[in-house]
Amino acid sequence: MRILSGIKPSGRPHLGNYLGAMRQHIAMQNEENECFYFIADYHALTTLHDSKKMYEFRRGVVLDYLALGLDPEKSTFFFQSDVIQHAELAWILSTLTPHGLLERAHAWKDAIAKGKRELNVGLFTYPVLMAADILMYQPDFVPVGKDQIQHLEIARDIAKKFNHVFGETFKLPEAKVEASVATIIGTDGQKMSKSYNNTISIFADEATLKKQIMSIQTASLKLEDPMPIEGDIILQLYEHFATPDEVMELKQKYKTGGFGYGKAKKVLLDRILDFFADARERRNRLEKSEKLNEIMNRGAKKAQATARKTMNKVYEKTGLLP
Amino acid sequence: MRILSGIKPSGRPHLGNYLGAMRQHIAMQNEENECFYFIADYHALTTLHDSKKMYEFRRGVVLDYLALGLDPEKSTFFFQSDVIQHAELAWILSTLTPHGLLERAHAWKDAIAKGKRELNVGLFTYPVLMAADILMYQPDFVPVGKDQIQHLEIARDIAKKFNHVFGETFKLPEAKVEASVATIIGTDGQKMSKSYNNTISIFADEATLKKQIMSIQTASLKLEDPMPIEGDIILQLYEHFATPDEVMELKQKYKTGGFGYGKAKKVLLDRILDFFADARERRNRLEKSEKLNEIMNRGAKKAQATARKTMNKVYEKTGLLP
Repeated sequence: MRILSGIKPSGRPHLGNYLGAMRQHIAMQNEENECFYFIADYHALTTLHDSKKMYEFRRGVVLDYLALGLDPEKSTFFFQSDVIQHAELAWILSTLTPHGLLERAHAWKDAIAKGKRELNVGLFTYPVLMAADILMYQPDFVPVGKDQIQHLEIARDIAKKFNHVFGETFKLPEAKVEASVATIIGTDGQKMSKSYNNTISIFADEATLKKQIMSIQTASLKLEDPMPIEGDIILQLYEHFATPDEVMELKQKYKTGGFGYGKAKKVLLDRILDFFADARERRNRLEKSEKLNEIMNRGAKKAQATARKTMNKVYEKTGLLP
Repeated sequence: MRILSGIKPSGRPHLGNYLGAMRQHIAMQNEENECFYFIADYHALTTLHDSKKMYEFRRGVVLDYLALGLDPEKSTFFFQSDVIQHAELAWILSTLTPHGLLERAHAWKDAIAKGKRELNVGLFTYPVLMAADILMYQPDFVPVGKDQIQHLEIARDIAKKFNHVFGETFKLPEAKVEASVATIIGTDGQKMSKSYNNTISIFADEATLKKQIMSIQTASLKLEDPMPIEGDIILQLYEHFATPDEVMELKQKYKTGGFGYGKAKKVLLDRILDFFADARERRNRLEKSEKLNEIMNRGAKKAQATARKTMNKVYEKTGLLP
């Protein structure tokens, strides 16, 4: 199966990112799949106008994924902006996209409802760029979260319209709706999210990681009291990274009492450090390596070869031919 | 001065096109100017979804301009779609363009007011593509008709915004509003326009040209009557192509009477055939030549070299760098 997914560069990843999309992306790399993963830097521009951050975020997400096990030989891993045909196809598709279709997009309606100051045109048209991102590679499946289903439907609508007007060209991609992973909670018990400032980073230095984990909210108890299991944030996070036996063991210590949250947090910290030890080491090594550009250039070339095939069809169908 | 202008491929040109933009484009080619002329095929897609027509119109406008004297050595003459960075820059600029700015564009408001069925997104966003077309080449002047002044203002607004957000990058282009040429009237006395079906083609075959000219509306008179000068369509067209002496001579025949509209139309036909004889011959020759692709490829390469320089600046300013 050919699978496509876009990754928004948005700063250092946290446990929620890993347990959601990142882990899934890496797991999908196998003999049966041909994966196209792109770093959606054109999309990022709709909200990020800071060259230094853009540079860091782009580079950061490459390092994160490679460290966590994305294999650039198995997957086609590239920057969206290295295949400028994405923007070209987006323009061409925009001439077939009814204006009303974008006005009805949830994300756009939400942005208006929130009364955001100065909405830019890119925020309005990005479902068209997303349609171009997808249709360019003619994937069988696009893994999407529930909030992204409408975008895939828009891409399918645009593809149908193109096929109707110009003749069969685009395969209609199917949404692969992610099995609803349990929401990952953050240090304050809400959903883990950068906007709540309650995240635990994967690749922060140990001091930062420790500080984040030590800030997990806990009950006020005396040291000798048994600690409640129900609703405990430390345990909930620990379950994602520890074996069932290890979880049982920790729960036992909670029940017995005389253990304390400080120690429990230390157990979690050690487990997370251990779980990501290889990835952290690999990331440090890659950060100093000169190979990053070479890897991304190879990815760009592979993606461009596929993009050119699609665009040649599009040129022929629309009459944009020499 | 660096001058930029876009030419919409829209079928066979008529006398109104020639006396308006085409003649001006060709006249601007001189030692003081560096002209960039592109065939706006991306724009054409907003209204033309027919590959055969698109192919013909694109090729046609190249033949027309080369035949009329556009010199691809003096000017940079190219297809917009051969420099796909136009679409890329349009995307980047769209992330800085306030949505409201496009909602206030006259052309868009007109389209809505006319209650056109199914307006496409390209019609809405094309001022952003136009801004990209212009800013890509950092021209000093953009010749515009009165109805295009707002589009240039939008391009300037977007350039200012980019410069403000990312630092000085784009030169603000000046509008060069065309000296209001007298409206060229068509065979029915209205403004010559394809939509009124009252045009006289430059490059139609002689039989078609004759038919068009013979269809010019005239008064109902007896042959021996003097023919009125005031409001006569034949004379008004003749004045654009004949010397003042020739015009005087024809007017004399009108006043004397016994001449007739058939003969007057024949005089006009011969004058037009004579005026465009070289261009018609050149066009026929070019049509059979194999050099067209070569000429357009050279134009594309010249344009791309300039576009790449601009885009490298843009990548640096936005952080879209390797």
